[in-house]
Amino acid sequence: MLKVGLLGAGRIAGVHATAISTNPGSTLVAVSDINNDAAAKLATQYGAEARATDAILNDPAIDAVLIATSTDTHSDLIERATGAGKAVLCEKPVDLSLARAQACQKVAAKNGKPVMIGFNRRFDPNFSALKAAADRGEIGKTEVLSITSFDPAPPPVAYIKVSGGLFRDMMIHDFDMANFIMGAAPVTVSAVGTSIVDPAIGEAGDVDTAVVTLTYADGRIAVIKNSRRAVYGYDQRVELLGSEGLLQAQNMLENTVVKSTTAGVTGAKPTYFFLERYMPAYAAEWAAFVAAVNAGSALPVTLDDGVAALAMAEAATQSAKTGKPITLASVLN
Amino acid sequence: MLKVGLLGAGRIAGVHATAISTNPGSTLVAVSDINNDAAAKLATQYGAEARATDAILNDPAIDAVLIATSTDTHSDLIERATGAGKAVLCEKPVDLSLARAQACQKVAAKNGKPVMIGFNRRFDPNFSALKAAADRGEIGKTEVLSITSFDPAPPPVAYIKVSGGLFRDMMIHDFDMANFIMGAAPVTVSAVGTSIVDPAIGEAGDVDTAVVTLTYADGRIAVIKNSRRAVYGYDQRVELLGSEGLLQAQNMLENTVVKSTTAGVTGAKPTYFFLERYMPAYAAEWAAFVAAVNAGSALPVTLDDGVAALAMAEAATQSAKTGKPITLASVLN
Amino acid sequence: MLKVGLLGAGRIAGVHATAISTNPGSTLVAVSDINNDAAAKLATQYGAEARATDAILNDPAIDAVLIATSTDTHSDLIERATGAGKAVLCEKPVDLSLARAQACQKVAAKNGKPVMIGFNRRFDPNFSALKAAADRGEIGKTEVLSITSFDPAPPPVAYIKVSGGLFRDMMIHDFDMANFIMGAAPVTVSAVGTSIVDPAIGEAGDVDTAVVTLTYADGRIAVIKNSRRAVYGYDQRVELLGSEGLLQAQNMLENTVVKSTTAGVTGAKPTYFFLERYMPAYAAEWAAFVAAVNAGSALPVTLDDGVAALAMAEAATQSAKTGKPITLASVLN
Amino acid sequence: MLKVGLLGAGRIAGVHATAISTNPGSTLVAVSDINNDAAAKLATQYGAEARATDAILNDPAIDAVLIATSTDTHSDLIERATGAGKAVLCEKPVDLSLARAQACQKVAAKNGKPVMIGFNRRFDPNFSALKAAADRGEIGKTEVLSITSFDPAPPPVAYIKVSGGLFRDMMIHDFDMANFIMGAAPVTVSAVGTSIVDPAIGEAGDVDTAVVTLTYADGRIAVIKNSRRAVYGYDQRVELLGSEGLLQAQNMLENTVVKSTTAGVTGAKPTYFFLERYMPAYAAEWAAFVAAVNAGSALPVTLDDGVAALAMAEAATQSAKTGKPITLASVLN
Repeated sequence: MLKVGLLGAGRIAGVHATAISTNPGSTLVAVSDINNDAAAKLATQYGAEARATDAILNDPAIDAVLIATSTDTHSDLIERATGAGKAVLCEKPVDLSLARAQACQKVAAKNGKPVMIGFNRRFDPNFSALKAAADRGEIGKTEVLSITSFDPAPPPVAYIKVSGGLFRDMMIHDFDMANFIMGAAPVTVSAVGTSIVDPAIGEAGDVDTAVVTLTYADGRIAVIKNSRRAVYGYDQRVELLGSEGLLQAQNMLENTVVKSTTAGVTGAKPTYFFLERYMPAYAAEWAAFVAAVNAGSALPVTLDDGVAALAMAEAATQSAKTGKPITLASVLN
Repeated sequence: MLKVGLLGAGRIAGVHATAISTNPGSTLVAVSDINNDAAAKLATQYGAEARATDAILNDPAIDAVLIATSTDTHSDLIERATGAGKAVLCEKPVDLSLARAQACQKVAAKNGKPVMIGFNRRFDPNFSALKAAADRGEIGKTEVLSITSFDPAPPPVAYIKVSGGLFRDMMIHDFDMANFIMGAAPVTVSAVGTSIVDPAIGEAGDVDTAVVTLTYADGRIAVIKNSRRAVYGYDQRVELLGSEGLLQAQNMLENTVVKSTTAGVTGAKPTYFFLERYMPAYAAEWAAFVAAVNAGSALPVTLDDGVAALAMAEAATQSAKTGKPITLASVLN
Repeated sequence: MLKVGLLGAGRIAGVHATAISTNPGSTLVAVSDINNDAAAKLATQYGAEARATDAILNDPAIDAVLIATSTDTHSDLIERATGAGKAVLCEKPVDLSLARAQACQKVAAKNGKPVMIGFNRRFDPNFSALKAAADRGEIGKTEVLSITSFDPAPPPVAYIKVSGGLFRDMMIHDFDMANFIMGAAPVTVSAVGTSIVDPAIGEAGDVDTAVVTLTYADGRIAVIKNSRRAVYGYDQRVELLGSEGLLQAQNMLENTVVKSTTAGVTGAKPTYFFLERYMPAYAAEWAAFVAAVNAGSALPVTLDDGVAALAMAEAATQSAKTGKPITLASVLN
Repeated sequence: MLKVGLLGAGRIAGVHATAISTNPGSTLVAVSDINNDAAAKLATQYGAEARATDAILNDPAIDAVLIATSTDTHSDLIERATGAGKAVLCEKPVDLSLARAQACQKVAAKNGKPVMIGFNRRFDPNFSALKAAADRGEIGKTEVLSITSFDPAPPPVAYIKVSGGLFRDMMIHDFDMANFIMGAAPVTVSAVGTSIVDPAIGEAGDVDTAVVTLTYADGRIAVIKNSRRAVYGYDQRVELLGSEGLLQAQNMLENTVVKSTTAGVTGAKPTYFFLERYMPAYAAEWAAFVAAVNAGSALPVTLDDGVAALAMAEAATQSAKTGKPITLASVLN
């Protein structure tokens, strides 16, 4: 039974608390948050204790730590938790700064404890089924990957200003999805971006709509499309062309009801946002972490994966600004 | 090259004229109609002659006759045309009277010329693909057949009064579809009917909505649903459950465009009515007739099939009135 | 906070235990079962006590009882639990005997405590969305209801012998669904049944495939199709034709992945069986029970609904045997 | 009645001959081809004459010419036909050389006769319905266009060597589709290409797989994906994101049959190639030409459109070679 400390008590921490508590192989022992009341409330709900972060990290009875705090604390907490001998599952991204993330990567490697980054989409039943089918060779040799990833509505401009920008905040999930499905890092990253959804986002120095093309050493190509706004709901699709066919992971819908009238044939919208769409993925992600830690086996997503996606975000940011393709190698050096 | 005389110059005759003319194995030679102008117009359009029906039937240069006149003339014309040595394709139904149709069947058999009944739906690419898959054993042993067959809007009550009723006029297509797919005649026919779409149809002595259940000697079951009104378009679906799976032939849609908005995900309606939906079926039906007549091989739909469907309509009419299952045998004797 | 005793510790009791525990308005206090070990194990998992049934019923601190024992105990337990002042949620069916269920109905009415019958499908998000759309008038006046309800595989013949037969054991869910959607009881019930899936089921006196037609006082019609075997998974669909359109609740699929190859375009199968398909429905059912009991408002499904569905099963059983339509009134007297 | 001369008697000329003959507003008068037998055969089939090209162009009784000869003759024939006072419908592309196409554009403009370029996809019922919906504002302001356009199988390498390359031969259709839907020319064209389908195509100096990103002055973005091989059939999809929704034109399928077995739920493949998919588009294209010429109104696709698409192909070719975005302006000067 894995004894777990949860750092953070916000909305996504609540999702993780449920996963920890309902998983038969783990128990939630303690919760910390800069907001004491939030920590207390969440702890009570699941029969755990509210503690200070240090008290969690220093407790030898705690085996693992789940980091669900604000992004600017991730690197420090990964370093401290692994230094304290804890297995770690940390929400993405590792850091907004690639250099800081790479430094963290080195410290964690030295500390020798497993660190998993919360790229929850890898555990979505649809995307994981697509990946499994591709790995079984069901469409032959893979050639072209397309990822469509639209949020239902843009966040407040105030958030965008501290988010690191669309490529680091939003598309980073899609960069990881590309790495997951292609099983390789790209050679070049070419990005175009625009603030067509909301000019205020452009004025804040960011884009709200972007298309990124990735090329691979073996001639494969990937395309990622992002928009901060799809009024019909969370649009999360993956499409993979291979020498022997095409795989598509389509949207989850709110229900299966279809209405036919003189106005046409109308079905339900996609599930609204990530909590609705990816709730099963969070539980599967945690189950994979528990299984790997308990077995001492390799984690399915690593800190290296977190750094790799961040490097692609860095390259895309540069490409969108300069209008030129950026090699991933140039960013990593 | 099959030389063809067309009896009738109405709307459906026009559809057949196109099929005859564009088929590389047949030529339209002459058209007759009680309306001389209509016959002349249709003949001119396709480079044929307008003639009296007798002049067509008596012309030894004409190989085949397509009967697309009003229902009350079908039996007589089948008898006369086969008597004159013509191969015949006659629009359904053979007759509204089962006894008259059976008499015609005997005359035609004596005349020894092939007669095909225009159950065009057998040639619909969707239904014929479903039938072919079932025949290849793709769903194992067949068990339960379901036919949904809704018209977009009811005909005028004046038409309904002379139509022979829903079972003889509309569901007769579905009875033939059941015979086509099940490859056997049913043992019993149980019908319930209602005039829920338009009370005036009930006052005219007919129903506008009906459900018929057919049982077969080997334990199989079929269900047919009819409604005179589906405001979203022509709803024509077939579903066949077997020991190893399910086959469904779904509706054809007006186009493939799908729109996702806050109101849901909306696609196009089914094609509006039989001319839109079954236009390819009419051409395929005629091609099958030409191929069989030219090869001297068995026709894919025969006068016997026309009588069989009519007997089922008779049984359904009796069942809806009496509230009891009717055996097909009792109707045929 | 509703304090709940759970009678039964089998598979479906486990599902209910989860719903009781995760619902913020209810707590699982005690579990009983004829198998003490099973009760103890389930109780421990959710922090409850294993007790004798009497100890649960006699505990004044327990507000509500969930009955998930074998069918032959339902009526007795409903009577005893309501007699002890508990609110009750009882798994379907009330009883295999209509007379016994009606007697239970009288006792429970006298005891004056609310009894809800576990027709979980009413709480399926798809069926409830269809019902809500119909109630909002989105397809005008309803006319024809079709229910397709196929299990993935038949149960053992040993179970079938004690099940009460397909109409009481399996189609009873669909009878309730018809009552739910049509908002009225039918006038007549006509059934045909066959043991085409497995002759041994026929030898045991039951059918494994059946079609039932229901007629309503206002001219509407409903058709229910049941098969004990659909090898592709649990096939649970509802279709409702109205004067202004059609509503369909389609199957839930295992995932949204679609593969296009030379063999065609292939998607996932329907979710396998009721635990997969209706898991969200069990939680919603329990939530509705808790909400109604706490509010003292009317339950969404009542013991009367349980008796009504059982009467339809009785009528269908008689109809399948006699080959005649059976009026519901004749069964209820 | 428009009297038409057809230049060319190959496969696509046969498609046009059918459209000309079946359109009630046009008649096929004459056919020419470098292969006299082919011209004679096609002319006979539709009651026309085989003639030399000059004899067609010099015949004052011929109103319009349809050019369906090899690409290298298009520009010359457009110039000669307009010089002879004929209205022209010419198959795409205008020429493989942008400079030659621009010269032709000037000559035709001087000759003052209408020239339509055969971008048949604009007349596909799906794409035209999507465009109409966008023009009606059904998804608000348009933002991101995605075009997926995969052929079922690559042509012979011998053809590829004379084709002008993927961008001029294949993607030119998609460039025109982008112009059609976006209603504007792009500012920049960025292309990546690879010969991952067949290395021999790469050795011949071409790519077989490519992704092109287009940016527009108003901040919109378009992405085009091409592959010479999709083994499951002709994959022709368009997707348009707007401020108020998403429009998708999906593939046409061979039929609507769906099979559910233990292996999954399988539907038909997309129609195989352009003749199957776009047959209705060819008829609609010709009808639009006839209507515009007869009315003296503006043609729906012009020689300018042909030059615009060719310029984008030129820019994409340069971008794929240099790895840099190319402005359309730089190519047009």
